[in-house]
Amino acid sequence: MALKGPSFGALMNKRRIFVNDVAMRDGLQIESVFVPTEDKIRMVNALSQTGLSKIEVTSFTSPKAIPALRDAEQVMMEIVRVPGVRYVALAPNMRGAERAMECKVDEINLVMSTSETHNLANTRMTLRQSRSVLTDIIREARGTAAVNISLSTAFGCPMEGAVDPQTVIALGDWFVEQGVDGITLCDTTGMANPRQVSDLTEGLDLRWKGVELTLHFHNTRGMGLANVIAGLGVGIQNYDASLAGLGGCPYAPSATGNICTEDLVHMLQEMGMDTGVDLDKLLACAAEMPRMVGHEVPGAILRAGKSDARFPPPDGFEDIRARALARGDL
Amino acid sequence: MALKGPSFGALMNKRRIFVNDVAMRDGLQIESVFVPTEDKIRMVNALSQTGLSKIEVTSFTSPKAIPALRDAEQVMMEIVRVPGVRYVALAPNMRGAERAMECKVDEINLVMSTSETHNLANTRMTLRQSRSVLTDIIREARGTAAVNISLSTAFGCPMEGAVDPQTVIALGDWFVEQGVDGITLCDTTGMANPRQVSDLTEGLDLRWKGVELTLHFHNTRGMGLANVIAGLGVGIQNYDASLAGLGGCPYAPSATGNICTEDLVHMLQEMGMDTGVDLDKLLACAAEMPRMVGHEVPGAILRAGKSDARFPPPDGFEDIRARALARGDL
Repeated sequence: MALKGPSFGALMNKRRIFVNDVAMRDGLQIESVFVPTEDKIRMVNALSQTGLSKIEVTSFTSPKAIPALRDAEQVMMEIVRVPGVRYVALAPNMRGAERAMECKVDEINLVMSTSETHNLANTRMTLRQSRSVLTDIIREARGTAAVNISLSTAFGCPMEGAVDPQTVIALGDWFVEQGVDGITLCDTTGMANPRQVSDLTEGLDLRWKGVELTLHFHNTRGMGLANVIAGLGVGIQNYDASLAGLGGCPYAPSATGNICTEDLVHMLQEMGMDTGVDLDKLLACAAEMPRMVGHEVPGAILRAGKSDARFPPPDGFEDIRARALARGDL
Repeated sequence: MALKGPSFGALMNKRRIFVNDVAMRDGLQIESVFVPTEDKIRMVNALSQTGLSKIEVTSFTSPKAIPALRDAEQVMMEIVRVPGVRYVALAPNMRGAERAMECKVDEINLVMSTSETHNLANTRMTLRQSRSVLTDIIREARGTAAVNISLSTAFGCPMEGAVDPQTVIALGDWFVEQGVDGITLCDTTGMANPRQVSDLTEGLDLRWKGVELTLHFHNTRGMGLANVIAGLGVGIQNYDASLAGLGGCPYAPSATGNICTEDLVHMLQEMGMDTGVDLDKLLACAAEMPRMVGHEVPGAILRAGKSDARFPPPDGFEDIRARALARGDL
């Protein structure tokens, strides 16, 4: 008996997949260089022309905590917004949310972990404190900006280990009750596997009806795009990814980056799915990243070219062919 | 309406997945260094203790064509064979097959491409010539060694582009008629996408009943493990992979390696599937590879550790927690 398989059939063709690029926030925040403000603005403007659905532009955090993003206001105010693209910024607290709203972000991305240790390390708050602070922000933002909550360590915590799926679902339920517009389940350090993704997320789109459900994977253990396949299999349409594969996690030193936006878009397009993205424009943006951050990047398509890349036959091919043909039937 | 999804349910738990490590052949053949014969033997012997189902040990090819494997006889004769492990060698022609049989390989792996240009470049034969030569070998080997045919470029040719699935299936049908024991569909340069894998391979296990069907992926464009998920979804149980992610293709210069054996086994085990492999022993083998080949290797788990790796909280964590708790409810 065959295993029950993913059916990449006609239904998939008709479903639009929405990609949120998080490189300018999740990627740049762990880089040691300060990318000049004008370069950030130019990159967001270029990304705006690629057809991406959402761009996470920056984080309204303390300049002391994340100096790489100390220019959040200027970037957010000076980018040229393209209608149809949603411009998002992360806010770790009420002050950040207020700054984000002053800059008229379309969406505030809040963040808390599903595990206490990671939440304390990342936000300096207990889970209970985070829930309280974030609820106030959701209330405050109502009518001004959409609010998404990113639940970190939803597929496992690098410090605590396994996270009970019921904990994740209960936390999501709670944020749905608070009136959040979107929930992102984050595999912060690349611990998720495709079966776990399928098991945890199946049916959540119905459970959290009316709330946008997004998956956020890292490719730390090579399973990033495999996890996307599992997500697609249960009908999830929204994915975070990072241009050129930037990103990582300061609490898991060997973690590599987020799944790579252009690799994701390439796979989806090769599968016949509609991302709305112009892959060549996206690749042109990605190609600037190594210079921008000052090091090589993990993206595969940047290095290998698209699947439709053609290579010439090896040197001497015509001779090889002539000699083979001369031998006739063997 | 939800997409039709992969159901990683109870069925998968009960299915054994078989992994064939091809590093010593597919990996070493493109390395510029000659790995000393005793190191090769020691590595095969170590791999034999990991629980792998098959090991592709070497290639009985011309020492001029592939000097890295000029010690095929010695390696094959001097390894310590473990009952239950199948020891395979590639043979490009009758002479190679005879040498392989003299060394009492369990299985001969034959190879031809599904596209004429790649076949000429790789084997110096037309498709018609390859079919004739390989048929003779299959006849000759009957009763002495099992024969597997690896069909290269089954998911696309880096020189010709798309390959018609009907061409691949017809070629497979033809080899089934010739009495081959196994067929491997090879994504030689990492062009395959998960939907294509699903579409091409669904039902082939029934069509080619009694013939072992194996999938061979490269991670050139980041889709290697995603393609495995697609293969699992249609019930395919046999996968080629290469220790530490060695491998590549000389006709697609930017191609990275085969999918990485320890990354594959890690994913399958995390998904609750039975590979029969001791992952820690396998990782110990993989860890020797950088020294053996003289360069870094692509494997992700070697670098990042398994998903169950735990990291300590950051410096000053107890202070962070104490300060958070002291603030009470927010």
